Amino acid sequence: MLSEFLLTEMNRLGSQDALPLHRQLYEALRRAMLDGKLGPGERLSSSRDLALDLNLSRNTVVAAINQLSVEGYLVSRVGSGTYVNDNVPKAATGRRNMGSAVASSSAPQLSARGLALSSRYCATELEVQPFTNGIADFSAFPLTLWQRLQNKHWRMTYPDMLDYATSGGYAPLRRAIADYLRVFRSVHLDADQVIVTTGTQQSLELCARLLADHGDTVWVEDPAYWGAAKAFMATGLSLHPVAVDDEGIRPTAQDDDTPPRLIYLTPSHQYPTGAVMSLARRHQLLLTARAHNAWVLEDDYDSEYRFSGPPISSLEGLDTDGRVFYMGTFSKVLYPGIKLGYLIVPKPLVTAFKQAHYDLNRPGQMPLQAALAEFIEMGHFSSALRRARQSYAERRVALLEALKPALSQQVCISGAEQGLHLCLRLPPHTDDRALAQRLAQQGLTVRPLSAYCLARKDLKGLVIGYGYAPLCEIQRCGPVLAAEVQRTVRSP
Amino acid sequence: MLSEFLLTEMNRLGSQDALPLHRQLYEALRRAMLDGKLGPGERLSSSRDLALDLNLSRNTVVAAINQLSVEGYLVSRVGSGTYVNDNVPKAATGRRNMGSAVASSSAPQLSARGLALSSRYCATELEVQPFTNGIADFSAFPLTLWQRLQNKHWRMTYPDMLDYATSGGYAPLRRAIADYLRVFRSVHLDADQVIVTTGTQQSLELCARLLADHGDTVWVEDPAYWGAAKAFMATGLSLHPVAVDDEGIRPTAQDDDTPPRLIYLTPSHQYPTGAVMSLARRHQLLLTARAHNAWVLEDDYDSEYRFSGPPISSLEGLDTDGRVFYMGTFSKVLYPGIKLGYLIVPKPLVTAFKQAHYDLNRPGQMPLQAALAEFIEMGHFSSALRRARQSYAERRVALLEALKPALSQQVCISGAEQGLHLCLRLPPHTDDRALAQRLAQQGLTVRPLSAYCLARKDLKGLVIGYGYAPLCEIQRCGPVLAAEVQRTVRSP
Repeated sequence: MLSEFLLTEMNRLGSQDALPLHRQLYEALRRAMLDGKLGPGERLSSSRDLALDLNLSRNTVVAAINQLSVEGYLVSRVGSGTYVNDNVPKAATGRRNMGSAVASSSAPQLSARGLALSSRYCATELEVQPFTNGIADFSAFPLTLWQRLQNKHWRMTYPDMLDYATSGGYAPLRRAIADYLRVFRSVHLDADQVIVTTGTQQSLELCARLLADHGDTVWVEDPAYWGAAKAFMATGLSLHPVAVDDEGIRPTAQDDDTPPRLIYLTPSHQYPTGAVMSLARRHQLLLTARAHNAWVLEDDYDSEYRFSGPPISSLEGLDTDGRVFYMGTFSKVLYPGIKLGYLIVPKPLVTAFKQAHYDLNRPGQMPLQAALAEFIEMGHFSSALRRARQSYAERRVALLEALKPALSQQVCISGAEQGLHLCLRLPPHTDDRALAQRLAQQGLTVRPLSAYCLARKDLKGLVIGYGYAPLCEIQRCGPVLAAEVQRTVRSP
Repeated sequence: MLSEFLLTEMNRLGSQDALPLHRQLYEALRRAMLDGKLGPGERLSSSRDLALDLNLSRNTVVAAINQLSVEGYLVSRVGSGTYVNDNVPKAATGRRNMGSAVASSSAPQLSARGLALSSRYCATELEVQPFTNGIADFSAFPLTLWQRLQNKHWRMTYPDMLDYATSGGYAPLRRAIADYLRVFRSVHLDADQVIVTTGTQQSLELCARLLADHGDTVWVEDPAYWGAAKAFMATGLSLHPVAVDDEGIRPTAQDDDTPPRLIYLTPSHQYPTGAVMSLARRHQLLLTARAHNAWVLEDDYDSEYRFSGPPISSLEGLDTDGRVFYMGTFSKVLYPGIKLGYLIVPKPLVTAFKQAHYDLNRPGQMPLQAALAEFIEMGHFSSALRRARQSYAERRVALLEALKPALSQQVCISGAEQGLHLCLRLPPHTDDRALAQRLAQQGLTVRPLSAYCLARKDLKGLVIGYGYAPLCEIQRCGPVLAAEVQRTVRSP
């Protein structure tokens, strides 16, 4: 009997360590799948029934199920419940034999975490089409100028520049980044605190590894940026989703029951809802972080593009404790493949972070770093930003205009004040995944808002990028999008 | 009483899961430090006494202590025993308060794994001096040609080339790597199996994450390449050292008691002893891997430089099960900061690896990949290799010549047939760390062999690189080195 097995497992786990109940249930369910007590494709009892059987609160059950879904052990099918993923137990069962030295001629399988990490969550392949979000229009990047700068630095290059980058990166680049952030983002820092990384994924992993241990809890926004969720999963953290509203993340007393070691945020332009975190909420969040003695990871992506409303200073700039790590990337402003980003580390931890970064990642690409430093110093970065801002502002207006016919009491837009995407909010009963599929058939890639949700079921909508689409494409495709939305909302 | 605490902890852990005894003791000791039962700087009882107190075999105790030393919890002081690291428990104690939501105004600390990952094991800073090992002479790199090729590709670059690299990298580069490995390394592969990474660290982490779960065992060579050990620690694996002899890794029946999920090897030129793994041993290892149903990670670094003896085909080429992952890097042949390497993935797992690599690392640098592809295709890579091989062969001869006066019955050279370093083996009573320090004072950076040892105490020697030193430097400094070695061995 499954529930007996689960109770026994939870008892064992509970006696051993102060694991919270939902984590005990998570482990017990995972073990049940690994042992084949829950077979591939098998339907799980409803969370209500499980809660009754195990004498647990429904929230506890839902939290465990969410975590297992996040990691790919379970899949939900709309209207029919939650099932064991077809892939998981087969491989996991293979795993169980591994301990014994018995000969087996079959090749070994992916590990359980390997299975989770290699399955895609944002179902669609990367198709770059007019409304794909998360991408900027790098066709406008000043290639000739960039090539000239790179050339210059390759010509001047002495052997040291071909070596690994020690001390956090090329010093002039770190100075240029520090100057930029001090002025434009009110970040308090010395160049010494800047570590040049290959981008946000590397910055996040470095923080997760150095600041948290395996099994520690990280609060992530719900809905969330999937890349960050994956980085945390890859580093063994336990994800705790915290709901976001129009002012950003909003932890409740219930969330406090799952205290975080890390809190990950996208305050400038919450991904994907687009909410800008209010100043009051920022102060509140810092107090919460202090109460839990947790670190804050501020991912300030998209902060470069603000179209209306006053700029809000970074969380890092409000922090008096030195508990905020601030990170950004050049992939969204220059071009994705540049693979250069930065992490700002509180002073007491700079040395530890530099050493671990060097040992774990062996950073390089010094000539590229040198070219970028000069690109920033000579003002090319600011003017590229200025031009981009102007061009994106036009696209944004065109998209808002095109979407107008679809707006109603039930359909509204959020997150359009900043960044390169907006969110079209739809009524809670809408099947936004089906809508996105219908649009894909018409050649339009937009993402359903529900695909980014971890635990919530109340959010439906479309995440629409306007960074990549040329103006004329927005004018051509926008009305198609609006019409399909109207049809969907009208039909019962 | 410590041993009581340890026994209670081990009982708890033993009842909960089929953890091996040494892992139970590891966890119990770790907990004792986290709880402050073993304070910073405190001396641990000898392994013999602990074994008696806990009624365990001495091997079990040694395995647990080794793992804790590897992770930086414990430090050994020569002749005086094993101590709790000064840093660890202070921070770890801070961690214990984190669970409660009690306000604390002090900034949080690094995590336990963060402490381990940010402390350096190869004590010396990266000083590039004549005999530093692990570095090639990239001053010979054909910069002008390289710049011309890069330029050409930047001129031709269309926007797609600025995007992230999907599908494992730039297709022509993957073809060029496949062609090279098929011909020169007898690796069986299609271009489709090649994944372009940023180098060996990234290749190792990808394998560790997708093929093993947190707490799984990886067999590593003893002595070992520290970069690999760190990658495994960072991905939560448990390191099990397996002793190396003149024919490479040699697992014993005792090692079989700690069955591996992964086996990491440097068969072409064992790092750091320089042993070349014999063909017989290669076949044996593949049988062992099959018996344990384990994956094999073959790091074929330094395979490009073979000076005497017949070339031995790669493990991957001997594998009939599809359980070998083969990896290499361009950092040693071109220049370190290029940050391009490759991982060859068995066919059934190619898709999973590509997806996870994309999701976790967002690879880029396509114009650089294009330049490298052309560099290889046009034969520049082969001729750079040829030139390098010739130049390194001369340096090698000069170093061997200079070391001759130091050789005796007790002092011999190993690992000089291949690669860019050799190993000068010294009598077991030699303090090779002190010798390396005396040499450093004379401006010579060599590494003590014992610094690479995980569990063994029997290996003493110097690891001497000749890849970086110009011929004249070797001729000038070699005799200084030889004389200091002679003095050391002669004095009691």
